[in-house]
Amino acid sequence: MKKIAVLTSGGDAQGMNAAIYGIFGRAQELGYELYGIRNGYAGLLREDIVKLHREDVRHIVAKGGTILGTARCDEFKELSVQKKAADICRKYGISDLIVIGGDGSYQGAYCLSKQGIGVVGVPGTIDLDIGCTEYTIGFDTAVNIAVEAIDRIADTSEAHSCFSVVEVMGRRAGFIALWSGIAGSARAIFADSNTTAEQIVDHLRKYHFTSGTIVLAEGAGKAEPMAEIIERELHVHTRANVLAFIQRGGNPTAKDRVYGSMMGAYAVDLIKKGKNHHLVCVKHDELCGVEISEGMKQTKECSAYLAHLGRTLSCI
Amino acid sequence: MKKIAVLTSGGDAQGMNAAIYGIFGRAQELGYELYGIRNGYAGLLREDIVKLHREDVRHIVAKGGTILGTARCDEFKELSVQKKAADICRKYGISDLIVIGGDGSYQGAYCLSKQGIGVVGVPGTIDLDIGCTEYTIGFDTAVNIAVEAIDRIADTSEAHSCFSVVEVMGRRAGFIALWSGIAGSARAIFADSNTTAEQIVDHLRKYHFTSGTIVLAEGAGKAEPMAEIIERELHVHTRANVLAFIQRGGNPTAKDRVYGSMMGAYAVDLIKKGKNHHLVCVKHDELCGVEISEGMKQTKECSAYLAHLGRTLSCI
Amino acid sequence: MKKIAVLTSGGDAQGMNAAIYGIFGRAQELGYELYGIRNGYAGLLREDIVKLHREDVRHIVAKGGTILGTARCDEFKELSVQKKAADICRKYGISDLIVIGGDGSYQGAYCLSKQGIGVVGVPGTIDLDIGCTEYTIGFDTAVNIAVEAIDRIADTSEAHSCFSVVEVMGRRAGFIALWSGIAGSARAIFADSNTTAEQIVDHLRKYHFTSGTIVLAEGAGKAEPMAEIIERELHVHTRANVLAFIQRGGNPTAKDRVYGSMMGAYAVDLIKKGKNHHLVCVKHDELCGVEISEGMKQTKECSAYLAHLGRTLSCI
Amino acid sequence: MKKIAVLTSGGDAQGMNAAIYGIFGRAQELGYELYGIRNGYAGLLREDIVKLHREDVRHIVAKGGTILGTARCDEFKELSVQKKAADICRKYGISDLIVIGGDGSYQGAYCLSKQGIGVVGVPGTIDLDIGCTEYTIGFDTAVNIAVEAIDRIADTSEAHSCFSVVEVMGRRAGFIALWSGIAGSARAIFADSNTTAEQIVDHLRKYHFTSGTIVLAEGAGKAEPMAEIIERELHVHTRANVLAFIQRGGNPTAKDRVYGSMMGAYAVDLIKKGKNHHLVCVKHDELCGVEISEGMKQTKECSAYLAHLGRTLSCI
Repeated sequence: MKKIAVLTSGGDAQGMNAAIYGIFGRAQELGYELYGIRNGYAGLLREDIVKLHREDVRHIVAKGGTILGTARCDEFKELSVQKKAADICRKYGISDLIVIGGDGSYQGAYCLSKQGIGVVGVPGTIDLDIGCTEYTIGFDTAVNIAVEAIDRIADTSEAHSCFSVVEVMGRRAGFIALWSGIAGSARAIFADSNTTAEQIVDHLRKYHFTSGTIVLAEGAGKAEPMAEIIERELHVHTRANVLAFIQRGGNPTAKDRVYGSMMGAYAVDLIKKGKNHHLVCVKHDELCGVEISEGMKQTKECSAYLAHLGRTLSCI
Repeated sequence: MKKIAVLTSGGDAQGMNAAIYGIFGRAQELGYELYGIRNGYAGLLREDIVKLHREDVRHIVAKGGTILGTARCDEFKELSVQKKAADICRKYGISDLIVIGGDGSYQGAYCLSKQGIGVVGVPGTIDLDIGCTEYTIGFDTAVNIAVEAIDRIADTSEAHSCFSVVEVMGRRAGFIALWSGIAGSARAIFADSNTTAEQIVDHLRKYHFTSGTIVLAEGAGKAEPMAEIIERELHVHTRANVLAFIQRGGNPTAKDRVYGSMMGAYAVDLIKKGKNHHLVCVKHDELCGVEISEGMKQTKECSAYLAHLGRTLSCI
Repeated sequence: MKKIAVLTSGGDAQGMNAAIYGIFGRAQELGYELYGIRNGYAGLLREDIVKLHREDVRHIVAKGGTILGTARCDEFKELSVQKKAADICRKYGISDLIVIGGDGSYQGAYCLSKQGIGVVGVPGTIDLDIGCTEYTIGFDTAVNIAVEAIDRIADTSEAHSCFSVVEVMGRRAGFIALWSGIAGSARAIFADSNTTAEQIVDHLRKYHFTSGTIVLAEGAGKAEPMAEIIERELHVHTRANVLAFIQRGGNPTAKDRVYGSMMGAYAVDLIKKGKNHHLVCVKHDELCGVEISEGMKQTKECSAYLAHLGRTLSCI
Repeated sequence: MKKIAVLTSGGDAQGMNAAIYGIFGRAQELGYELYGIRNGYAGLLREDIVKLHREDVRHIVAKGGTILGTARCDEFKELSVQKKAADICRKYGISDLIVIGGDGSYQGAYCLSKQGIGVVGVPGTIDLDIGCTEYTIGFDTAVNIAVEAIDRIADTSEAHSCFSVVEVMGRRAGFIALWSGIAGSARAIFADSNTTAEQIVDHLRKYHFTSGTIVLAEGAGKAEPMAEIIERELHVHTRANVLAFIQRGGNPTAKDRVYGSMMGAYAVDLIKKGKNHHLVCVKHDELCGVEISEGMKQTKECSAYLAHLGRTLSCI
């Protein structure tokens, strides 16, 4: 019986559990044994490996976080460590490993695949910053949480006739900022570091805004100094809010559950087809597999249409 | 100055207000005047038409329902009524009308376009049952509400070790059932009328299920009789729940806000390009316009991949 | 070491897990061993009894349902069965049993106490219909879910300019209807069977309402016929919605978590003080214990102030 | 016809709109005219006063913030300004003013009452820190938002096996921290400045905690330095989160809607009875009025029972 394994790595994302669920379901259907590796690559090195059973996964789809745990593992950059990890996989009879995580996790997966272990990557990060795929698990939930927070902050900003700068996650990428800014009717969106505080101030002044929300991607600046600049220039009280880790947990949205499940199942399909040095991707809203070294080279930008829309709507 | 108008028609859907917002934003950018017609085609016939201002739309994105109101209008099937409606548009100087609604609303739009009024349709229905587009505004919110309800019902079903049949909306289409069934870890999903109660009972028996959720599309049957059959055949207490109209209101999700805004703005773009007998569609996750008579002929099915996934996962 | 046990019985309610958590915490503090009995009195008779450990309860406060399961147990009305249950308790060395449930569950607890087992009741029911206490665990969550549903239904009712009759739970008591009706800005509230459909129709007519929500307690009537009467009399389209079991699951609110924890801990305090034939009650918002036979005789009505307020506000 | 007015002042709180709604309803019932004063005492001085109509309040109960706006008004501390404000009330024929706000707002109300204007205070603050009342509008919603955030942060903390310090609002009072800490299964709760970081570290060490949430009242310290101490002492990665203004908006919970409505209506009842230099209070869960200078002297502490419970449960 074929044995495969799954681990989650890097920052956790809502929907990782749905991916594990989808993997379990397809593995069961194909008659594969599925092992779970706890706490990412670090757990693999410690042989923290357990067989997964139906009861382990039955109730996990609705849960945030990851039942397998996750961790960073700096030593995995060393070749000797990668070799050791591959040996451990072989010792357990694990032919293929599914890695759910972001681009750092893909780096580890790529190294492992060079040591002869089949590897499939599933994109799991709230940041949407993996170049080869349109969707990454967790993004929809993180955006919805950010929007809910922005809605709440908008109530109190409006009551006090003040501005609020809301800093959202996204690492260097502005996807969460752009989406939550449009959805939250922001007066201005700082999605990237090309936008300057002066431009934002000019924009707010031009449209005579005296209250409302400014959404700021963490890669574009910090909430506190931005709030100070706006307050000083426009003479309107301006509050700073950093949403931080509330964006990284909670029950996944329907999309993260369905796409998580789909992508997980598709990862097993790729293994079955022998495409086990691949990354699961969404292209034109359809699932596909991309060869891992190829996929890691790809980059993407925020949709130009959305970016323009954001500027258009922040004039209302 | 070019004058355009917007109305919402048929069943309301969350995100219709975002579409109005997107239309307003792009109209403002292009220097068009925007009129709102209240209560659908019926309101058009009553000349219930108001100019929309910035203040009218500024806070609507987060709101369910439609600020314009909606209504059914049976008399609009008559040619004389369609001519009268076109005359009213001309009287007000309205060159183009944007209609946000489902396929019934598109029928009216098509008739109006034959009377010489420019018409662009924006797909707004929770049912996702418009053939020419992958996405319809409201679907994501409706599915998330259904999933939240299923999660809750699952808690009490599990506490009582019983089955619960949950009937979701979707008219003849099983999209809401399929998505919410996968996301809600259903034991079985009746997405269409091809599935029989016997098949469901056999499935539950085969996998030794003694509790859990069965999701039923309204087009595939009724919750009460289905619950009775399951209870009788499997000797497990089985509850019936009809979610009904809770699926049709509430704050829209981020997706319905962003896609609503995008599709609304895109409708104005189509008018600008002279494509004013078109429907706004999403194809391969990109916006495009399809000629109205052409678009109305298209049909679509539930994704085969998703349908298979649903069957796979309901064995866990 | 003193051994005590806990079971949940009757309909589940959000916050029952918090009560178990509070019991565990206080038992640990006092050095008592705590046993969990699965599936209510039926489980006691089957000796479905497990020792509870820290890991079993650590993550349960946020969860709906009950980790112990619940069931109805008709045979517990027989004296011989009660004697058997008491013998089982003695066999396991369980001196005192905490029963979390509604008045049916208290009946069983009372019978058991007459067989020489110490018993403390904790009020757990969404219906708030236990006479001797102002609060019962689950009520706040159920009301908030009902209000959220009413908010959503209000959006679509307003969009369509129609009435919606929303039937909420509560068994014979109208507490959920009264609270959710006031919170949901209902046009009318049927909290009990003294109100007739004619009175509701007159009220809606008198204040010229042409849309909005009518909240109906399940003990006061059925949604479908009520909607038909309103539609027929007022010539306004009227929809019926039965919220049903969505009111009985989901993450508990802060109040149900805090009050659940408090009441659970207080139950152990009562055992410590030798008050082990008592019910935990809230009186004037403070915890107290009432002798079980005494408590079961007490009754309560909906607050006259709230009832009057409901009538006042449904005129807006 | 008697004319009364309402204003909201100080920090906004969810449920202030429900209070306005309750005031409107009772005023209408008694045949009083109701005026709304925008932006607190500052608006009163600017004569920013409008008559409130049914349409203005019909849909406000579900909304966060305050439809009247709020502002701080430092100049109101001057006697001449207070006299001017009283003159403005008299000019408009307003005999009585209802002030919804916290203790700073009560100070202003008291000064105005000394100038011969009838004044009734309604406690509206998320902080629960008004001595003379058990409940203040907004607290329940703020706590529920904090708990939801803590639940989310707990998911990601658990996935990463780390600690998270979550700083909640409450000014000098630890009520929000205590409630959200118990409800969120915190490992430790810093509800007041009597607790030291050393005590928290000792507690975490004693019970061998290696992950989980530490809830910190803003009056007890700052999240960042606290996280650094814990990380340094326990060698566990520790994150800091400041919830900030998300706690101050969003749809009010059922309790804040019902209590808001009740307290608002009761304020009008007090005016009717001539008790128009009073504060609306909740004592033993019943509404009552307390003479304003008397009420302002009262203080309260966190419930000793709850505080002990918090310590008990944070050992699990």
